[in-house]
Amino acid sequence: MSTHLQREVEKLKNKIIALAATVEKAVQEAVKAVGTRDASLAQKVIDGDAAIDRTEVDIEEDCLKLLALYQPVATDLRFIIAAMKINNDIERVGDIAGNIAERAMSLGDQPPVKEPVDFAQMNKKALAMFRASLDALMNQDAKRARQVRAMDDEVDTLNREIYDKIRAALRKNPEQVDALLNYSSISRLLERVADGSTNIAEDVIYLVEGDIVRHKPVSPE
Amino acid sequence: MSTHLQREVEKLKNKIIALAATVEKAVQEAVKAVGTRDASLAQKVIDGDAAIDRTEVDIEEDCLKLLALYQPVATDLRFIIAAMKINNDIERVGDIAGNIAERAMSLGDQPPVKEPVDFAQMNKKALAMFRASLDALMNQDAKRARQVRAMDDEVDTLNREIYDKIRAALRKNPEQVDALLNYSSISRLLERVADGSTNIAEDVIYLVEGDIVRHKPVSPE
Repeated sequence: MSTHLQREVEKLKNKIIALAATVEKAVQEAVKAVGTRDASLAQKVIDGDAAIDRTEVDIEEDCLKLLALYQPVATDLRFIIAAMKINNDIERVGDIAGNIAERAMSLGDQPPVKEPVDFAQMNKKALAMFRASLDALMNQDAKRARQVRAMDDEVDTLNREIYDKIRAALRKNPEQVDALLNYSSISRLLERVADGSTNIAEDVIYLVEGDIVRHKPVSPE
Repeated sequence: MSTHLQREVEKLKNKIIALAATVEKAVQEAVKAVGTRDASLAQKVIDGDAAIDRTEVDIEEDCLKLLALYQPVATDLRFIIAAMKINNDIERVGDIAGNIAERAMSLGDQPPVKEPVDFAQMNKKALAMFRASLDALMNQDAKRARQVRAMDDEVDTLNREIYDKIRAALRKNPEQVDALLNYSSISRLLERVADGSTNIAEDVIYLVEGDIVRHKPVSPE
């Protein structure tokens, strides 16, 4: 790799890591706003999405410039393509944070729920996957990326448990339908954070091993 | 463009169109299975997802080969990058068809709903967007792509109407919670078909105009 391209790729990595950190914080705050019914925190997350969107576009333009200027091959080409796709997935997780924040706002307008759902564990696991998928990218570590794929099942299980809880609550307290449907959305949105992290992990495995693992059964190392 | 690359790009286009046609049919059949509670049709859609996944991987490998072999620049580079992203979005719509089919299976296990939701109109509009976004790609027609973005609002409105209907039904018939939650999922899934089509349209606009329009306000024309 030319020293110049190497420098550009380092810059690209740093931008991606910074974007991922911003997005992770947005998810954290959105879920916090759900629990505390903090409308101003939720609004902050919603307002923050525009900056995430701008950074995504900026990173994509960088990738296209690198492709056009350096016409990289082999590992470098694969890294830049993976970076483009992962950038896109990170931004989509940012959108999800905004969607969760909107649910928090909506919950704030409704009377308190008798049996509120606690999303702490699901949020923790989904964001652990997100962080691990980015770690795997930075260290080009396919083993770490495979762990992310295996973790997805745990989040699916939590999602199903929460769904069952909401379903039972809807039968018992149909007058709380608005709040309970918001809970149902939030659970599904957190599950999509996990799915997005799995997508990132799969792109890392491809990057490292040149093997498209998407749609193959999970085999945790 | 070299004649050889031109031929390869034409092949790539044909593969993408064929994949999109398969995915469109899968969504059609999944929604049909919801209305008719046809478990064997739903199972067919679920089983068909593996072939869609394989084709996506195949197309992605083609794109990577073209990038590595021809090191294209300018329009050709942009087309191949757009094709990779759009291929990914088409496959995700395929996943959504599978998810709708799963909801159809689940509905089939439940007693008939007093006021069933009709998804025909939402399905029609979402698939019109999907088709139009692919037309825009094939004809490199940014105007057509902009129409897709504008249509997204109509689907959002339908989604909101269906949501209100389901919410009212949940209050009135809480014993039908299982079926009604399935309806709520299906509505959200169709809305994601529309979102996927919007993503495709935005990539087409970028391809044609070199302008990243994602996250910009919609201005039809």
